[in-house]
Amino acid sequence: MLNHIDPAALSALRAILETGSFDGAAAALGVTPSAITQRIQRLEDHVGAPLILRGRPCSATQAGRRLRQHADEVALLEHGLQADLGLQASGIWPRIRIALNADSLATWFLGAMAAIDGMQFDLVLDDQDHSHAWLQRGDVMAAITASPAEVRGCDVRPLGALAYRATASPDFMARWFADGLCATSLSQAPMLVFNAKDGLQRRWLEQQGYGRVAGAPVHWLPSTTAFVEAAERGIGWGLNPYPLVRDQIADGRLVDMGGAFSTPLYWHWNRRIGAQLAPVTQAVRGAARKQFCEV
Amino acid sequence: MLNHIDPAALSALRAILETGSFDGAAAALGVTPSAITQRIQRLEDHVGAPLILRGRPCSATQAGRRLRQHADEVALLEHGLQADLGLQASGIWPRIRIALNADSLATWFLGAMAAIDGMQFDLVLDDQDHSHAWLQRGDVMAAITASPAEVRGCDVRPLGALAYRATASPDFMARWFADGLCATSLSQAPMLVFNAKDGLQRRWLEQQGYGRVAGAPVHWLPSTTAFVEAAERGIGWGLNPYPLVRDQIADGRLVDMGGAFSTPLYWHWNRRIGAQLAPVTQAVRGAARKQFCEV
Repeated sequence: MLNHIDPAALSALRAILETGSFDGAAAALGVTPSAITQRIQRLEDHVGAPLILRGRPCSATQAGRRLRQHADEVALLEHGLQADLGLQASGIWPRIRIALNADSLATWFLGAMAAIDGMQFDLVLDDQDHSHAWLQRGDVMAAITASPAEVRGCDVRPLGALAYRATASPDFMARWFADGLCATSLSQAPMLVFNAKDGLQRRWLEQQGYGRVAGAPVHWLPSTTAFVEAAERGIGWGLNPYPLVRDQIADGRLVDMGGAFSTPLYWHWNRRIGAQLAPVTQAVRGAARKQFCEV
Repeated sequence: MLNHIDPAALSALRAILETGSFDGAAAALGVTPSAITQRIQRLEDHVGAPLILRGRPCSATQAGRRLRQHADEVALLEHGLQADLGLQASGIWPRIRIALNADSLATWFLGAMAAIDGMQFDLVLDDQDHSHAWLQRGDVMAAITASPAEVRGCDVRPLGALAYRATASPDFMARWFADGLCATSLSQAPMLVFNAKDGLQRRWLEQQGYGRVAGAPVHWLPSTTAFVEAAERGIGWGLNPYPLVRDQIADGRLVDMGGAFSTPLYWHWNRRIGAQLAPVTQAVRGAARKQFCEV
C-alpha cells in the first residue's frame, strides 16, 4: 500500500506527460528542470518502478499511467469533498480524460462540454472501433466507442447511432460514375479514407453489395471537416456524418450515393469514479439525445 | 546493393503499415494472411533485418520505413517513365506521403490537392513545429513545417505565414475578462490547447506581455474546427486561424482579443525525387500563395 504520495511529484508527472518533456513541465509549473527530475526520481523510488519513458515526446510506463490515473481520480474525489463540505474550492478544476471519435467531436460532443462547468477536458481522438483500448489501458476515464462490450471495471450506456452518407460532388459523379455505381467504377474512383483504422468506406461497399473493391486510389485524410470539403472539391468520395453534409446534399453541392448507414455509439466510464463522473455522463447523454433525435 | 526486390513483397509491407495488421493487409490485397507472412519473411531474409514491429497497430522498423520510402520513390519514378515514353499508365496512382499541420489542412491545403490529378495523397497530421521529424526519419516525402531549417537531403521554400487571432465568445469575455485582460484574469479563464505540442497560446501570452500565465484551466481539444466551435460556445479562449474566424469576428459571434500573430510555413521535400514531386510543389505553393495573399 502506497501512502503519502507527494502531490507535487504527481503534478510533475502529469506536466511531463502533457508537455512531452522535463523542460516543458518545468516551464509549466514555474520550477527548475532539476526540481522536476528530483520529484520524478523520488516518486520512482517510492513506487519502485520507472514512470517515464524518455523520448520526444516523453511517455508514461504502465506504472506511470496508473499513477496519473490515480492523481486524476483523487483530484475528482477532492473536488466532490469540497462541494459536499461547503469548503472553498481549490481553484484547480478536476481533469476528465476522454477518448472519442473525431466525428463525434465534429458533430455533437461540444454540446456536452459546453453544459459542464468547472472541469478540464482532455480529449483524445481515436477511431470509434479503437477507443476501447484507451479505456482498457487505463489511459482515459471514459470513452465513446462503437462497441457495447463492457470493459472491465466500467459501466456502459448506449448513446444512439451517428448517421452517415456516402457522398461525392456532382462533377466527381459525372467523371467517375457516369455509367452508374458498380464494382468496376468503384475500383477506379479515388476514395477518401480517414486513416488506417477507418473501415467505414469498406463496410459501406460491402453493405451495398459491391463486395471487396480492390485497387481504387485512396487519399488518407485524417480530418472530419477536411473530409467533407474534399468531397465537395471532387478530390474523392467518402462516408461523411450526415449532420455535416445535410445542407450540401439538399442544395446539390454533394450527391448522396445511397444506402442508409450508421454507427452505434456507446458511453463507457470508469465505475470507480462513476459518482464523480455523473454530471459528465448526464451531459454526454443529453447532447447525444439531442443530436440523434434531430437526425 | 539490393537488386530484384519482389514488388509483391513491397506491396505487402505497405499494406501492413496502412491497415495496421497482417490480416488487414491480406484483405486489402485479396490474398491469404499466410501469403503476407511469407512475403515479409522473404523480404526480411533478403534485407537481413526485421521490417515490422508486431503490435496493434503494426509499425515499421527503421529498415521497414526505408523500404517503404524506396517503394514509394520507385512508384513515382515508374509513373514519370510511363508518361515520358507514352506508355499506358499502370492504373496505380503513385502515393505521396506528406506531414502537415491540422490548421493548414483546415484552411488552404485542399486547394493544392484538388489541383493534382493521378496521385494518391497520404496525409499525416502533426504540429508545424514537429513535422520536421517526420521528414528526418524518412517517414514522409514532403512536409509543411514552421521552420526554414534545411533537412538533410531536402529542399525548402517559404509558403507564407498563417495568420491567427486569439478569440473568445462575447459571453466568455464578459464572464472572465469583465475587468480586462491581465495576467490574473488569464490565469483563471479556461484556455483551449490543441494538444501537448501546441505552444501557440503560450507564445501569444508572452508576445502580448502577459508572461508565463500559470494555473489556468486547460481543455485539450485536438481538432481545428472543434477549436473554433468551442470558442463560439464559450468553452474557452484560444488561437484560431484567421481564415476560419474572420466571419465570426465580423458579425460579433467571436471577439478578437488583440495582437497580430502568425506562423510562417515552409514546404520541405525530398530532393532525390524533386523532379517527380515538382507538380505537387507547384500546386502547394500556388494554393498557399492564394491563401496568404487573400488574408
